[in-house]
Amino acid sequence: MKLDKRLQADSKHIYELGESTLLLMNNSLVDWFMLVPRCDEIEFTKLTFELQTEILKEINLVAQFIQGQFSPDKLNIATLGNVVSQMHIHVIGRKFNDPYWPAPVWGQAGSRIYTDDQVTEIKQAFERFFATNDTQA
Amino acid sequence: MKLDKRLQADSKHIYELGESTLLLMNNSLVDWFMLVPRCDEIEFTKLTFELQTEILKEINLVAQFIQGQFSPDKLNIATLGNVVSQMHIHVIGRKFNDPYWPAPVWGQAGSRIYTDDQVTEIKQAFERFFATNDTQA
Repeated sequence: MKLDKRLQADSKHIYELGESTLLLMNNSLVDWFMLVPRCDEIEFTKLTFELQTEILKEINLVAQFIQGQFSPDKLNIATLGNVVSQMHIHVIGRKFNDPYWPAPVWGQAGSRIYTDDQVTEIKQAFERFFATNDTQA
Repeated sequence: MKLDKRLQADSKHIYELGESTLLLMNNSLVDWFMLVPRCDEIEFTKLTFELQTEILKEINLVAQFIQGQFSPDKLNIATLGNVVSQMHIHVIGRKFNDPYWPAPVWGQAGSRIYTDDQVTEIKQAFERFFATNDTQA
């Protein structure tokens, strides 16, 4: 499965889950992750129900990670694909004091890339989390 | 289950599904539906997996209806809840020539309310669709 060039350019690789690749959007102003299922289908609702529920477990897992790691005030979960058609599901921790709140994150002006150390820290935190929670995904 | 006042003001009632109320956003510029699950929980990912999968079936059903009725170019599916906290899941048919494309629908300037006849037509179309597809939800 080849990752869309724009998704690749805009994100950092975090983990290979069972059905999807977990990416971190390279914008440290919000805790913004994306799951990219390894499939050619564009619409989530056209996947088999079995695959949908497997991906849903991965959404739940990432949501649980975000809640434990970043204590968001609200989660935003979405699959849009208007610009990049390769299926990707946003799982985003939002805070009342993040710079975009309460607007959605897409198309907002201003972002702040992560340092390599910050990305490594998040990647290692996810690996630790996954090691103790992988029965759920 | 009491519907949030803002959701109520912004939408038209379409149908009572098994787990959620189906609403039509009162903006005929896009084919924009919302599922409001009958629950007090704010985060979809905190629902039981069983309830999540029941709601997922309803998302699939509404997606199938939108695709058959409006022939969208892309579906947008999202649960944000930054402004209205009562859980609601957007299921939106997008077209390359809709006035917001390719931006997300939220926070866009300009909308056009439906006529009563248009709402009745969509409601009846959904009822007909549901009558022949209710084994799936």
